[in-house]
Amino acid sequence: MKALSDIGLVGLAVMGENLVLNMASKGFTVTAYNRSVEKVDSFLAGRAKGKNIRGAHSIEELVASLSKPRKVMLMVKAGQPVDDFIEQLIPHLEPGDIIIDGGNTHFPDTNRRVAYLESKGLLFVGSGVSGGEEGALTGPSIMPGGSPAAWEAVRPIFQGIAAKVEDGTPCCDWVGENGAGHFVKMVHNGIEYGDMQLITEAYQIMKVLLGLNADELHDVFAAWNKTELNSYLIEITRDIFAYKEDGEALVEKILDTAGQKGTGKWTGVSALEMGVPLTLIGEAVFARCLSAQKEERVEASKVLSGPEVAFEGDKQAFIEDLRQALFAAKIVSYAQGYVLMREAAKEYGWNLNYGGIALMWRGGCIIRSVFLGNIKEAFDNNPALSNLLLDPYFKEKITQAQAGWRRVVAAAVTNGISAPAMTSALSYFDGYRAERLPANLLQAQRDFFGAHTYERIDRPRGEFFHTNWTGRGGDTSSSTYNV
Amino acid sequence: MKALSDIGLVGLAVMGENLVLNMASKGFTVTAYNRSVEKVDSFLAGRAKGKNIRGAHSIEELVASLSKPRKVMLMVKAGQPVDDFIEQLIPHLEPGDIIIDGGNTHFPDTNRRVAYLESKGLLFVGSGVSGGEEGALTGPSIMPGGSPAAWEAVRPIFQGIAAKVEDGTPCCDWVGENGAGHFVKMVHNGIEYGDMQLITEAYQIMKVLLGLNADELHDVFAAWNKTELNSYLIEITRDIFAYKEDGEALVEKILDTAGQKGTGKWTGVSALEMGVPLTLIGEAVFARCLSAQKEERVEASKVLSGPEVAFEGDKQAFIEDLRQALFAAKIVSYAQGYVLMREAAKEYGWNLNYGGIALMWRGGCIIRSVFLGNIKEAFDNNPALSNLLLDPYFKEKITQAQAGWRRVVAAAVTNGISAPAMTSALSYFDGYRAERLPANLLQAQRDFFGAHTYERIDRPRGEFFHTNWTGRGGDTSSSTYNV
Repeated sequence: MKALSDIGLVGLAVMGENLVLNMASKGFTVTAYNRSVEKVDSFLAGRAKGKNIRGAHSIEELVASLSKPRKVMLMVKAGQPVDDFIEQLIPHLEPGDIIIDGGNTHFPDTNRRVAYLESKGLLFVGSGVSGGEEGALTGPSIMPGGSPAAWEAVRPIFQGIAAKVEDGTPCCDWVGENGAGHFVKMVHNGIEYGDMQLITEAYQIMKVLLGLNADELHDVFAAWNKTELNSYLIEITRDIFAYKEDGEALVEKILDTAGQKGTGKWTGVSALEMGVPLTLIGEAVFARCLSAQKEERVEASKVLSGPEVAFEGDKQAFIEDLRQALFAAKIVSYAQGYVLMREAAKEYGWNLNYGGIALMWRGGCIIRSVFLGNIKEAFDNNPALSNLLLDPYFKEKITQAQAGWRRVVAAAVTNGISAPAMTSALSYFDGYRAERLPANLLQAQRDFFGAHTYERIDRPRGEFFHTNWTGRGGDTSSSTYNV
Repeated sequence: MKALSDIGLVGLAVMGENLVLNMASKGFTVTAYNRSVEKVDSFLAGRAKGKNIRGAHSIEELVASLSKPRKVMLMVKAGQPVDDFIEQLIPHLEPGDIIIDGGNTHFPDTNRRVAYLESKGLLFVGSGVSGGEEGALTGPSIMPGGSPAAWEAVRPIFQGIAAKVEDGTPCCDWVGENGAGHFVKMVHNGIEYGDMQLITEAYQIMKVLLGLNADELHDVFAAWNKTELNSYLIEITRDIFAYKEDGEALVEKILDTAGQKGTGKWTGVSALEMGVPLTLIGEAVFARCLSAQKEERVEASKVLSGPEVAFEGDKQAFIEDLRQALFAAKIVSYAQGYVLMREAAKEYGWNLNYGGIALMWRGGCIIRSVFLGNIKEAFDNNPALSNLLLDPYFKEKITQAQAGWRRVVAAAVTNGISAPAMTSALSYFDGYRAERLPANLLQAQRDFFGAHTYERIDRPRGEFFHTNWTGRGGDTSSSTYNV
């Protein structure tokens, strides 16, 4: 073990422990610290035993054990605990030392902390870390942003422990200044919500409409994982359907109420605030909320009846339609997420590398997939691509997929099976490719009741007209009333 | 004209002017003030001429002209201008005087201002005012909240100028403390987004799928306005299709890009923050965002092809299906909006009168409709109703409507016509009435990759289980990583 550690890590919950073990396995010496210091001792006596890991029982001891510039990574609960540890660390650090927040922090907090720590001569990195407990141990996706001067010092460790794609490229690169790393991690999590929701909808349709059992579902997901859908989430779904307890699929014993207090809703809020139609992730977040209303749904199911479920046709053909629907909706979800990042880059002045982001997500993280390689290619071919749907590869794929996608959504709708994400993705696709949407009527309504004015198709943009539709009311145009 | 005015009003844009004229027409004497004082003079010389309206050229003059307790209503742009006028007014007011903000303020600002002004011995009312320019003139819907002690002084004026329903009941009552009035107005506006979006979708489907022209659309909306859909928005839609310019329908000349920088997105953000599935309004807000991407849609329409539009069947029967779809989706939209208000009441400690809110919206405002009378009845019958869909009337209506609703959505999906609000409402309906949703798989995934734990259907709620799905990884359960 080196005399001084390469990095210190605060917070020995599962993600923190596994990151420490990962760093030690790559030849870095790490000091581990936890507020409840018994956890330090049990970690050292247990999983950390015999590895390049030392423990600290105080912040002083932690800081004193680090080589300069000191690097302290916080893996604590987002919010006040991060600020608390920052305050505890500051008196012990020197100019040029680096604090890293690896938690699921909301990006505006990272914006604030970067400015605060730089004002004290310190450097701050806010980094998304994805991959769950297993990724943390064996190679996560890491999305760092913040003080650019910190990157060279942090890079060897982060790129060392990160997942690698086939050619050895690490799934970690500098994202951008301020909260850019946490913003991109937030979008990653939103996309994760979307991917998971799409898979659950495919499951529900196959279970309810086609009557497939867990073994059959296992086979479907195993087969899908050998196609364009190849991804970590499809893979674990395959494995989940194979997991038996007393001979029965465990998944069917699990309560159907999903947690959500996290980052998915932040993604939706950002989209609303920036005016970006992020419908699929929005529906995925709301679907979790609805799932949580379990008791009320049970009551409602007794009151509100629906159609009889009836499937006629070729099951195998329909399963292929469903695969196309899942794939097409997934393209829409990523297209929407990338538009959100593009708008954020404009708003916050970040110079985001869109292909690089796809590469960071290509391995290590929960949404890792072959698909992200296609996204990287799309941005390599055209870094200014405004929407993934316009990339030749994705355009061709979604165009091919749409017939099956439409059949699946129509079947879900007809049979009373809720598939909000697949459905809303199709509404977006049809809206996005519509030269003419009916918003002209909406503008007429707004002008009718609120004198909001409108533009015309036979006049240049930027000229605004008001019609006195009723012949009553003033000719004052609206300025305070904005619907 | 009385020696002292009953109320002062600041801000002579269209809404402010019309409110002043409305108050004067009901026998109140009003002092009008505007930051650009030329507007005061032109108003007095113009529309205010010969009425119980005096002008003020300064804040001092305004305050000096008012009877006590003084009531000053601000009809200025939401945000900093409200704070600025509050600061200008404070030095001239006495304990017990009342400032009213009638703008489209975000409710947290009203929460803050009530506390601030009460700390200075003053009273503050934040009031939603809906009805557009015509409503302001002839009888708006008014939704006041804030300092309860202000209500008795404000009530005669507000209930005097408000719209009245058939039996003379004013569409104005006390909503609740702090920002409750502005919160309810925000939900009103979100619902307005939803209602408008639904109408535009019906229009698009009739235009694109059935090939109806403006005259035929006029006839359809005229007919629909004689059914359960009877409402202001259906009525003005009918009139919009009748409005011709050089013999052609004006609405078809209007650019299809809708504005949205307002309160619809706040409603969506509140829903995300409180975990309430408000999918229809969310889709309506996003649909406006998508409509605004006009140039990109024009490009996309050349790249992304869809199915040939083909309608076969009975047009009249399909139009009735469409009416049912619009009605059913509208029920869902209001059901979701009311759930949001119920959650907000819990969160902020407001004692909201849900039937009373329906009554306030029953007349005067943009969303006024016969439908709101049915909602009032639902809450009169059961004030604790958790979801409108469970009310016997709405349950029956939506159950009857669903076959047509499903046919319309399936037709839109099959023909490539975007109808996000109708579609997402159906996904919600089918999700809400599902005893079992597929979130069990989602919980299995979260436990698989993040040790998030799950509950079981064969165990009591509140017991959490973790499975080591892979046989690898630690047995530490997750505490910092929350997706």
